[in-house]
Amino acid sequence: MYKVDINCDLGEGFGNYRLGEAEEILQYITSVNIACGFHAGDPAVMRETIKLALQYDVKIGAHPGLPDLVGFGRREMAISPQEAYDMVVYQIGALQAFLTTMHAQMQHVKPHGALYNMATKNQALAEAVAQAVYDVSPKLILFGLASSALTEAGEKIGLQTAHEVFADRTYQSDGTLTSRNEPNALITSGEQAVQQIVQMVKHGKVTSQQGIDVVLRADTICLHGDGEHAVQFAQLVQQKLLAEQIVVKAFQ
Amino acid sequence: MYKVDINCDLGEGFGNYRLGEAEEILQYITSVNIACGFHAGDPAVMRETIKLALQYDVKIGAHPGLPDLVGFGRREMAISPQEAYDMVVYQIGALQAFLTTMHAQMQHVKPHGALYNMATKNQALAEAVAQAVYDVSPKLILFGLASSALTEAGEKIGLQTAHEVFADRTYQSDGTLTSRNEPNALITSGEQAVQQIVQMVKHGKVTSQQGIDVVLRADTICLHGDGEHAVQFAQLVQQKLLAEQIVVKAFQ
Amino acid sequence: MYKVDINCDLGEGFGNYRLGEAEEILQYITSVNIACGFHAGDPAVMRETIKLALQYDVKIGAHPGLPDLVGFGRREMAISPQEAYDMVVYQIGALQAFLTTMHAQMQHVKPHGALYNMATKNQALAEAVAQAVYDVSPKLILFGLASSALTEAGEKIGLQTAHEVFADRTYQSDGTLTSRNEPNALITSGEQAVQQIVQMVKHGKVTSQQGIDVVLRADTICLHGDGEHAVQFAQLVQQKLLAEQIVVKAFQ
Amino acid sequence: MYKVDINCDLGEGFGNYRLGEAEEILQYITSVNIACGFHAGDPAVMRETIKLALQYDVKIGAHPGLPDLVGFGRREMAISPQEAYDMVVYQIGALQAFLTTMHAQMQHVKPHGALYNMATKNQALAEAVAQAVYDVSPKLILFGLASSALTEAGEKIGLQTAHEVFADRTYQSDGTLTSRNEPNALITSGEQAVQQIVQMVKHGKVTSQQGIDVVLRADTICLHGDGEHAVQFAQLVQQKLLAEQIVVKAFQ
Repeated sequence: MYKVDINCDLGEGFGNYRLGEAEEILQYITSVNIACGFHAGDPAVMRETIKLALQYDVKIGAHPGLPDLVGFGRREMAISPQEAYDMVVYQIGALQAFLTTMHAQMQHVKPHGALYNMATKNQALAEAVAQAVYDVSPKLILFGLASSALTEAGEKIGLQTAHEVFADRTYQSDGTLTSRNEPNALITSGEQAVQQIVQMVKHGKVTSQQGIDVVLRADTICLHGDGEHAVQFAQLVQQKLLAEQIVVKAFQ
Repeated sequence: MYKVDINCDLGEGFGNYRLGEAEEILQYITSVNIACGFHAGDPAVMRETIKLALQYDVKIGAHPGLPDLVGFGRREMAISPQEAYDMVVYQIGALQAFLTTMHAQMQHVKPHGALYNMATKNQALAEAVAQAVYDVSPKLILFGLASSALTEAGEKIGLQTAHEVFADRTYQSDGTLTSRNEPNALITSGEQAVQQIVQMVKHGKVTSQQGIDVVLRADTICLHGDGEHAVQFAQLVQQKLLAEQIVVKAFQ
Repeated sequence: MYKVDINCDLGEGFGNYRLGEAEEILQYITSVNIACGFHAGDPAVMRETIKLALQYDVKIGAHPGLPDLVGFGRREMAISPQEAYDMVVYQIGALQAFLTTMHAQMQHVKPHGALYNMATKNQALAEAVAQAVYDVSPKLILFGLASSALTEAGEKIGLQTAHEVFADRTYQSDGTLTSRNEPNALITSGEQAVQQIVQMVKHGKVTSQQGIDVVLRADTICLHGDGEHAVQFAQLVQQKLLAEQIVVKAFQ
Repeated sequence: MYKVDINCDLGEGFGNYRLGEAEEILQYITSVNIACGFHAGDPAVMRETIKLALQYDVKIGAHPGLPDLVGFGRREMAISPQEAYDMVVYQIGALQAFLTTMHAQMQHVKPHGALYNMATKNQALAEAVAQAVYDVSPKLILFGLASSALTEAGEKIGLQTAHEVFADRTYQSDGTLTSRNEPNALITSGEQAVQQIVQMVKHGKVTSQQGIDVVLRADTICLHGDGEHAVQFAQLVQQKLLAEQIVVKAFQ
């Protein structure tokens, strides 16, 4: 019997703006990562997104990002570990307060965009992020790229971690994602994407772009909440996992 | 035997900027209001200011403001009660997370600048702010202008409130502060300012600009942390209160 | 022979966000107001929107707003005339530089949202905005609500002004728009909206919500660029104006 | 007969904040770089700083930076050349508009902080910055680190460039500044700093930390406008240059 969590980034609107996220995606996921106001999200969007997540009984996590709204937190910035620590603490706290007003719990923290990517490779940043999560609450689960510096830092400090895998991204032989700047970074066939997930969950491995089997742990699968095929793809994933007797379930 | 709390706004730097706040002021106050990133303050400044406050054993409160860094939160904005609620929840949470990392407690919440002023007069905003504080934690003390819509809203919802008085500001017969745009808004004589405090604390009244005695409750006195005479004035206040057998003491 | 300009706000995206503006709307308008980075718009969006406008040969104006991205510049703020002056100069300049890089001219300036509304009623702010436009270039045309403090301030200082009317908004007997908070603020029938325009352009009057004919000058009609019926409505307006022998034409 | 320009960054306040810049520094410099709102500066500060510069008859330049107020534009960000182009155009334009309102000219553009540093090393960014300056006006002078990718890009496109040298920073053998993270990055002796300047201006070379003479062109010297010894050091520089018969003079 296999099980896996499915997570999705939501609440990435800001002010008057929305990203075209489909509420229906919440039917197919078990954990949601909510933006906290730095790369996206504002207090109103945060409150509304939590409310939605609670209606669908989806576990909630903070999705802290870099202070770069115009770049959507996707541009790497030369921040210090202390700055990473501070921005993660701040953003977790902001989301936590809204959860408190709704008598709800935070399950996890998943850094966003460039902060996530930098913490995947940079040990000092990874440790700062993990420390921030731990210091706010050692019960929080740290989501990070499977077998990365981030999950390692989380485990070292004593946090439960969720190794994250991607359905629609291809992998390199070192376990990192193929850069979006490369051709073949994205898997566009739904069928192929689903097969990659099943292989990762059941067999703990993924075939890299170089044709090598890379061992990894697949605790949670990242799906996208926007884009025209998001809901359709989520349905396909659900059906396939069911057929493969993989139970989709959050951590707490 | 009289007692009163003395509070001061600190942590109002941002990034590379500092306001010339004097750390020594912490020796003379019992409660500190820390900016939370909207009108001033950033995650690093918040962390450092909490650390300082803990060193001086001063009680800590959140000082949420309007999202107007360039205007330092001093320009009134036509926000809705829901927007006021959301921005207060967000900012309290951000500060709370830093307190949590340092195993420290939040004592109170005092809105900043135009948010404070609007909540003094506007019942709907006052209720939204009070509700936000209550929903995050009913144990928090709400600081507001003495006998204002804000303290009233706090009391109605069941929060402990601290009626705030000002040493260096003159009053109108309706209990509001004389607008800074008016002449005589400020009391520049230290001696006179201290006398006003003593009268407010001991006798529960202040003489308005119109020469009328206005009844008010003086739970906490607001001092300024910047300006060249800030520390000197704080010392004077301390000496005078001591001489008048008024104990300076935080609430918790 | 009648003539009128049709203007539309565009370039109101920011970073990763777009407002669902339809490029096709550019076929039906003669002047475009481009957001300048305060309430919406960022440097990339500004450049791209200018490029589009040039492709469609539509005249370009700056659309400066309040520094309130999360509120989309729609929340009134207690700014001073000097602050209004400064923010208008800054934003016009930013847009002008992009126009310069593309060897294009700026035709006009139309304040956005709450800045527009405040300048409609508040003479000091209206004069500050007009002065800012004039000081950057006396050749710029100032767009403002027909017969408002803003157009008056523009005319007083010697600017060409464009009195703006709205197709889909109802009017009060004093010539102001019915507040969006009131029922009947919006005209939802396309046919009725078009009739209101024709009456304004041909007969220089509009029937207020109170049933009174209000005299106004209709130099330019504001259309919306987003919303599902925006393009369809623009087509309807074009057809009707053609049928009424009203020529749609920009000012320069 | 030798001549050199002396430049200084000013206008780096924001809202309620000032950096402790000394107005007197304007007596000792010939070119001023004014922040444009991204890393520092706001419309009011920009206007006031231009006014001061005009009073002292100092030539004015734009000082565009990264959109990182909390980091003061000093943190490198992974921006694309297009993003660099856009942010430079935007910021030059904003400053230009204020100059226009005061009937004043812009002499030059000097990128700030991390944008400057990145453009020193990264050819694509250097070319984007140079292109932005050129497209806004080919008459602008581009200030960049002496013998860097930035001055090279400016010269290639046909801009006049000003090779900038630093009095109080040490150099590496490749002509770059010693990183602030290294010991000996700063020259703390005023006498030594002045000698380095004289050597650079008169002999076109600087002795690197490795003891090697590096050839460079010294068109403009960067002085700091804040810090307690800023004015005193500027006086020393002035005296020494006078004694060495080096004329201090702006470019236009």
